[in-house]
Amino acid sequence: ASLRTELRCQCIKTVSEFIPVKQIANVDLTPEGPHCPTVEVIATLKNGFLACLNPEEKWVKRIIHTILNRQSHKL
Amino acid sequence: ASLRTELRCQCIKTVSEFIPVKQIANVDLTPEGPHCPTVEVIATLKNGFLACLNPEEKWVKRIIHTILNRQSHKL
Repeated sequence: ASLRTELRCQCIKTVSEFIPVKQIANVDLTPEGPHCPTVEVIATLKNGFLACLNPEEKWVKRIIHTILNRQSHKL
Repeated sequence: ASLRTELRCQCIKTVSEFIPVKQIANVDLTPEGPHCPTVEVIATLKNGFLACLNPEEKWVKRIIHTILNRQSHKL
């Protein structure tokens, strides 16, 4: 357990399974930086879990676009 | 999708099921603040998921203590 102020990567690995977009409430992208050497893509799921996604995977790129569009339609 | 720099709560709800401590790699506590009105307790699971935990639940308090002890033994 640690306070989120001492920053490091939040993901230890990415999920291996596909996650349907209707289970996803939001997606956050954290760029690499001094706290973590890799880009982190974290989906907030509607069931209380978050999922670390691999930004290289096709279905993940598709989901990021879908969620971005969903948000821009809200504006 | 948004960059993690625009801060808000990362959890939309907490998980309803019990999570065995052996599935948990780490636990982060984020105090409430201008970005989010509630304390967030996020467990990093070994399968690539993260779980938002309710800090009021007994089993969550027990897990936080277990992980803290595990870390202090490593020092």
